[in-house]
Amino acid sequence: MEGEEKMKSEKEKMLSGEVFKVNGSTLVVERGHARRLVQSFNELGEDQPAKSRALIRELFGHVGNGCEVHPHFRCDYGYNIEVGDDFFANYDCVMLDVSPIRIGDHCLLGPRVQLYTINHPLDPRLRRNGAYGQSFDITLGNDVWVGGGSIICPGVTLGDNVVVGAGSVVTKSFGDNVIIAGNPARIIKKNSYRE
Amino acid sequence: MEGEEKMKSEKEKMLSGEVFKVNGSTLVVERGHARRLVQSFNELGEDQPAKSRALIRELFGHVGNGCEVHPHFRCDYGYNIEVGDDFFANYDCVMLDVSPIRIGDHCLLGPRVQLYTINHPLDPRLRRNGAYGQSFDITLGNDVWVGGGSIICPGVTLGDNVVVGAGSVVTKSFGDNVIIAGNPARIIKKNSYRE
Amino acid sequence: MEGEEKMKSEKEKMLSGEVFKVNGSTLVVERGHARRLVQSFNELGEDQPAKSRALIRELFGHVGNGCEVHPHFRCDYGYNIEVGDDFFANYDCVMLDVSPIRIGDHCLLGPRVQLYTINHPLDPRLRRNGAYGQSFDITLGNDVWVGGGSIICPGVTLGDNVVVGAGSVVTKSFGDNVIIAGNPARIIKKNSYRE
Repeated sequence: MEGEEKMKSEKEKMLSGEVFKVNGSTLVVERGHARRLVQSFNELGEDQPAKSRALIRELFGHVGNGCEVHPHFRCDYGYNIEVGDDFFANYDCVMLDVSPIRIGDHCLLGPRVQLYTINHPLDPRLRRNGAYGQSFDITLGNDVWVGGGSIICPGVTLGDNVVVGAGSVVTKSFGDNVIIAGNPARIIKKNSYRE
Repeated sequence: MEGEEKMKSEKEKMLSGEVFKVNGSTLVVERGHARRLVQSFNELGEDQPAKSRALIRELFGHVGNGCEVHPHFRCDYGYNIEVGDDFFANYDCVMLDVSPIRIGDHCLLGPRVQLYTINHPLDPRLRRNGAYGQSFDITLGNDVWVGGGSIICPGVTLGDNVVVGAGSVVTKSFGDNVIIAGNPARIIKKNSYRE
Repeated sequence: MEGEEKMKSEKEKMLSGEVFKVNGSTLVVERGHARRLVQSFNELGEDQPAKSRALIRELFGHVGNGCEVHPHFRCDYGYNIEVGDDFFANYDCVMLDVSPIRIGDHCLLGPRVQLYTINHPLDPRLRRNGAYGQSFDITLGNDVWVGGGSIICPGVTLGDNVVVGAGSVVTKSFGDNVIIAGNPARIIKKNSYRE
């Protein structure tokens, strides 16, 4: 068993939620590739939507029908991001996609929304030289609307038809049909439109 | 009466606080025009202040005497933004000016302040394809200082001499001479300098 | 004594925590110089790390061994920023370094972390025309990890091995070995890895 563990690459550890070396060689190359695509995307501005969409399709792991992302977008790997149909991300969103970020259909991100899958260890010796990270998937259901400036923390799952108030910090998971807000985000009320 | 309603353009509905189709044709053209001006402004950097000021005057609906805005600025239409004399906005502010944003004299916005007039419907079916929005004016009085990273939500009015602590999320209106902070923002103390 | 006060330049007042005129002539020139360096740094993107590092060394007052800063970085003067060994700042950090910002060894800043040393006066008459500011040092110990989107307010000191949760607003100082989070940030728990 321990032998098997030792055979895992840093990328495999990263994707399975284990502590991994951030600068494993494959990972550095893949981040460099993603950064060049992101930089091209951001330099395009907003006047060439067909080219912008093509770059997002090249960058993301999956894109459904209809997708609009506004610059300046930021991500780490890109291939860990999967979005369903009819995805919209307003200005300057950040997705630290060290683990998979899965987003359902008809989701809206306001400006400057940030989704972080990556954590660093609490042991400071393991944080030195940015050496180690540990990351956890983020999953958003269908019809999720995240208000501008909000942060979604590592490991969070949001159900269908969740509305996140602007400027929220979402530190834990929530089920379907709720409106959440605050730092940390709490349920403000049920959203009964689906019931 | 209902007949009159049907005659309203999506832009008229937008400006009167009714639910409107986000991608009405006039609105798309106007956003495209604003984005080109904003992109030119942001590409100028900070070395050509006269040109930067001229672009802001072209973009905004009204600008008083003295106005300094730092890149990268973001807005939707521009013409819905009216600022009084002696306006200052530090780096990277966002104004989603789907409804009017009226700012008095001697106002300061710290870096990354965001003013959002736009909401999406709580009914998820109406949010699909970014189809519908509903927006509410934002009004700031004179001598308002909004600390960096704060968010002002749709429909908020702040009186004269209001100080908003850094990183606040302002979800409701406040009167004159108060210091507010937090998420959601609450009154921390009276600011007696005016009394 | 009062005579001595009058001899101080606006820069000297600024650095000693007194109310100072923001647009003293030396200060405007120095900000202009810093902005040109910052603009060059941000235009480099992420493909030329050696050049990026050289610009940061030119900009900052002190840089230890090993330093990685990602664009778009923002600061006011640059020379007031001192970072120890093994410093890492992710995307889009802001340091308003009107007073000194001193950062120890092995510190990590997540994306969009903002450190503000500058305040404006509560008397609105003194805020007009951006005329006056007052600023207070920020000091981070060793092994401090500031989560993404957090804001550190003027005058804050954080001890060694402090972890700041994502999206926090840190309005006061904290000692060693704590995990803090929220708006305003409070101690969530002790971080015992050092004990």
